[in-house]
Amino acid sequence: MKTFFDCIPCLVRQTLDSLRSTTGDERIQESILREVLRRLAEMDFQRPPAAMAQVIHHLVREATGNGDPHLEKKRRLNDMALKLYPEFARRVEQSADPLELAARLAIAGNVMDLGVKSNLDEDEMISAVDDCLRTPLDRQSVAEFAGIVDDAENILYLTDNSGEIVFDRLLIERMPREKLTVAVRGGPIINDATIEDARYVGLTEIVEVIDNGSDAPGTLLDDCGEEFRRRFERADLIVAKGQGNYETLADSPGPIYFLLRVKCPVIARDLNLPVGTIALVRSPCWSDAAGVSRK
Amino acid sequence: MKTFFDCIPCLVRQTLDSLRSTTGDERIQESILREVLRRLAEMDFQRPPAAMAQVIHHLVREATGNGDPHLEKKRRLNDMALKLYPEFARRVEQSADPLELAARLAIAGNVMDLGVKSNLDEDEMISAVDDCLRTPLDRQSVAEFAGIVDDAENILYLTDNSGEIVFDRLLIERMPREKLTVAVRGGPIINDATIEDARYVGLTEIVEVIDNGSDAPGTLLDDCGEEFRRRFERADLIVAKGQGNYETLADSPGPIYFLLRVKCPVIARDLNLPVGTIALVRSPCWSDAAGVSRK
Repeated sequence: MKTFFDCIPCLVRQTLDSLRSTTGDERIQESILREVLRRLAEMDFQRPPAAMAQVIHHLVREATGNGDPHLEKKRRLNDMALKLYPEFARRVEQSADPLELAARLAIAGNVMDLGVKSNLDEDEMISAVDDCLRTPLDRQSVAEFAGIVDDAENILYLTDNSGEIVFDRLLIERMPREKLTVAVRGGPIINDATIEDARYVGLTEIVEVIDNGSDAPGTLLDDCGEEFRRRFERADLIVAKGQGNYETLADSPGPIYFLLRVKCPVIARDLNLPVGTIALVRSPCWSDAAGVSRK
Repeated sequence: MKTFFDCIPCLVRQTLDSLRSTTGDERIQESILREVLRRLAEMDFQRPPAAMAQVIHHLVREATGNGDPHLEKKRRLNDMALKLYPEFARRVEQSADPLELAARLAIAGNVMDLGVKSNLDEDEMISAVDDCLRTPLDRQSVAEFAGIVDDAENILYLTDNSGEIVFDRLLIERMPREKLTVAVRGGPIINDATIEDARYVGLTEIVEVIDNGSDAPGTLLDDCGEEFRRRFERADLIVAKGQGNYETLADSPGPIYFLLRVKCPVIARDLNLPVGTIALVRSPCWSDAAGVSRK
């Protein structure tokens, strides 16, 4: 997905959020803010917003010397989600359609995105998850997704945020784990999940987890490591979580399912879905013999 | 008031709103957006945001050849307010404290600000006005304001937006009009009221109306005409409506009362009042023998 004009004020706001999480020094904040404005003025709008978000976070990190400004928040999000995990696991277990509920919860967990909302407390999270649980997923999409999961031989699951990966675990537990690889970001960016988060929440104990070699808040294939790219090409099903992965892979011709919560008007317009929707959508570029198309 | 970092994403959003009201040509939109980002990167943050808003609107106007992009919306806002005027005039007339209600209504009318909300329909306006009418003004502030109006010999009333000036009329009708001059902007900017609006809503028939010689969305004294500046200096009471006038005059040492609806977090922080408040506040720079100070 290209960068829309409306992404620009949002990228400036993200810059401020990131600067404020990292340093209280207003001179540094001002100097980075000015540099970001200069870069935005010259940026290639054909690239996804996540590419510019990566540049911004590199600038912030270099100027402040803080390599992982959201480390503490990531820990807090993981802990918040781990506290909820047993109850949700029980609900999935007892559900009439465990895969559907697990998918919904995995998408609900996508609310834990500090790029969109820089402060998120437990109450807000629980209410956002409850909200998602009241919003039904399209039954036919779920049935189609379940069939494709069954048929796939080589599934690559691209995670999005820390905290959220605990909710992903609920879905991963319902998938054929011997055919599944989970990928996290290759380095810290906003609150995106890295290998440390995967270890912290116990994901590494139940499934193979690799990192993608890139610290973009999405999956910029040309920035990812070679090993990850090989896995990506070999996969016959890619499950991509969150807006960042959607932005960066929507134009990619892979067999991709996007699972996300629609959190901004730009993505909403691109997907033709209202803000707040939980979405399980097949990649617009994926066509197959069955002729199943994007909803 | 200086430009805070949080004003920057908002100025970018205002640029987009203004561009979209003016031209559908995405190449022009992109080129102006990039130019605004360059200007923001170099701007003097000690100047108020209204100074940059003026630069932005000049760029938009020059690039699009449209000198008054909001002309139609201004007409619509005036018409909307004129429709409500008789009912509100009746309520003021029958009120136990007509000046207080008129002041509240004048502040309520400040909701008609396309710089903050680019689309405002009649229902939203009525509900915003109702909201303001439920929020009481501080009694002591009103009594103090009434006393100062009574004592003043030379009152200058600085208007803000079209539509809103119809609500101002309610307050102006409760003031000693022989001692009163009303000022509007010197040229079109967003939906700020100009002399054409003052004529359209009949304000020119009941009081002297002058223009300030500037098309900044506020009162940048160094950009205003000489005649206006003379009136400003001679006034022993200046009633300044709206955020733009607050931004540009808060550091000015005149005998100023600000009447505004607090519409953004930056102004809220500066005034130490919550967003949504209707405020009648004496200038922070105004001290007098009575020692009345800013609330």
